[in-house]
Amino acid sequence: MSWIYEQDFEVREYECDLQGIVNNAVYQNYLEHTRNSFLKQKGPDLKALHDQGIDAVVARIEIDYKFPLRAGDEFICRLNVRREGELKLVFKQEIILKENERLCARANVIIVCIENGRVCMPQVILDSFKEILEPKN
Amino acid sequence: MSWIYEQDFEVREYECDLQGIVNNAVYQNYLEHTRNSFLKQKGPDLKALHDQGIDAVVARIEIDYKFPLRAGDEFICRLNVRREGELKLVFKQEIILKENERLCARANVIIVCIENGRVCMPQVILDSFKEILEPKN
Amino acid sequence: MSWIYEQDFEVREYECDLQGIVNNAVYQNYLEHTRNSFLKQKGPDLKALHDQGIDAVVARIEIDYKFPLRAGDEFICRLNVRREGELKLVFKQEIILKENERLCARANVIIVCIENGRVCMPQVILDSFKEILEPKN
Amino acid sequence: MSWIYEQDFEVREYECDLQGIVNNAVYQNYLEHTRNSFLKQKGPDLKALHDQGIDAVVARIEIDYKFPLRAGDEFICRLNVRREGELKLVFKQEIILKENERLCARANVIIVCIENGRVCMPQVILDSFKEILEPKN
Repeated sequence: MSWIYEQDFEVREYECDLQGIVNNAVYQNYLEHTRNSFLKQKGPDLKALHDQGIDAVVARIEIDYKFPLRAGDEFICRLNVRREGELKLVFKQEIILKENERLCARANVIIVCIENGRVCMPQVILDSFKEILEPKN
Repeated sequence: MSWIYEQDFEVREYECDLQGIVNNAVYQNYLEHTRNSFLKQKGPDLKALHDQGIDAVVARIEIDYKFPLRAGDEFICRLNVRREGELKLVFKQEIILKENERLCARANVIIVCIENGRVCMPQVILDSFKEILEPKN
Repeated sequence: MSWIYEQDFEVREYECDLQGIVNNAVYQNYLEHTRNSFLKQKGPDLKALHDQGIDAVVARIEIDYKFPLRAGDEFICRLNVRREGELKLVFKQEIILKENERLCARANVIIVCIENGRVCMPQVILDSFKEILEPKN
Repeated sequence: MSWIYEQDFEVREYECDLQGIVNNAVYQNYLEHTRNSFLKQKGPDLKALHDQGIDAVVARIEIDYKFPLRAGDEFICRLNVRREGELKLVFKQEIILKENERLCARANVIIVCIENGRVCMPQVILDSFKEILEPKN
């Protein structure tokens, strides 16, 4: 597996629950923020898309929780993405501890774009991610 | 002190942090949701105001934390409101345990409305809250 | 599909993001809170388990997002649960709009229990959920 | 006003609400995380204190919201602290935009420590923050 983008994080105390570990839902925040940072670096971010009438939304997410993050942990969230069929973007993402690369969580996230209430694949996305989504032979 | 609106809540586990108590920031969520429910009951809610180009925002908040909420606690958030000067709405709010009325938190929240980048007091607010904000002598 | 537990919710404004819809991660909060309320009704809740040295954790979650929840929406989160193998509890959960039963999200959540760093199936869980997990022939 | 600690942040999309700005409660998360990072740098962090039976809790917070943070904004949260009376630590904190130092929020936060259900000033805090809390004449 090759990764095309990664982002550093540090667990914040308020993200931990009474078991002393990061709450499961917060992993989605990390995964989402990493995807958005990636989008922003390569093309239009979520806000810019929204202002153009396009909402990129999660259609399906699968997360395997492998090892719990704890307060103060430094970790990396990394991703790659491919196109599936006409309308789907599939992100593969991993969260690993910075210290020893231990795998904390692995996720598949299917994103679709909605414009005027219909699922579509906006040209702006295709243009921005051309090299990534349509690799040369 | 007389209260004009109250709402029931139950602490959700994910709202607690590693000290086993509700995180301080979450009290603001409770206070905000209670104000919004009140707005919605009496007039336009935040979303409706936003769609009219008016954003009701918190200008200042003061919270005294008196007794910690814990997972599973049932509690009441109550409020009253008065106008201060031309442009401010001042909400007084309390969070009390349902079981024994023990005071958990007390807050003062100053709200102002922004329209086209300027602080204002929208007519729709004055109309909706006429009886509350301008009591008869 | 038959459901064995359900809980009512109302979307709170702060749970919505800048697209005007409930943030994906917040659905996990709803799903988790419903599971915990169910646990609490039938046996030991998360906090009680934690105090006994047992942590019930999510090993895997799959969520299909079907229709977005918006501010003010009233909805129901419902679940059933079965045992899979020796060590897993599999919750099926759905979030539906109260008004018209429209499906907003569907989830599979695999829970395992950790005691002294090892995955186990605590007797207290088996005892509390006996009728549900081991239905009579 | 002189500041003794500061931390860099970037607004994450999920921290924004349907008005497109960071939700008020999230500012408390930023303020709290900055205080905790400061504690950790100088002495025992919240988790370490908790494990020693000491909980540092917010007794009162005052926040003036001056200018809204938006998705993608880079900002700095800075603080100083003084002792007030025997038992209180008073943090002054500011959130400013990195780009132009525009003030977004200003806060006073009163922290007290609880040990065995009683408010106290733990020796470990006094030792760790000696130079800061008791400046030489």
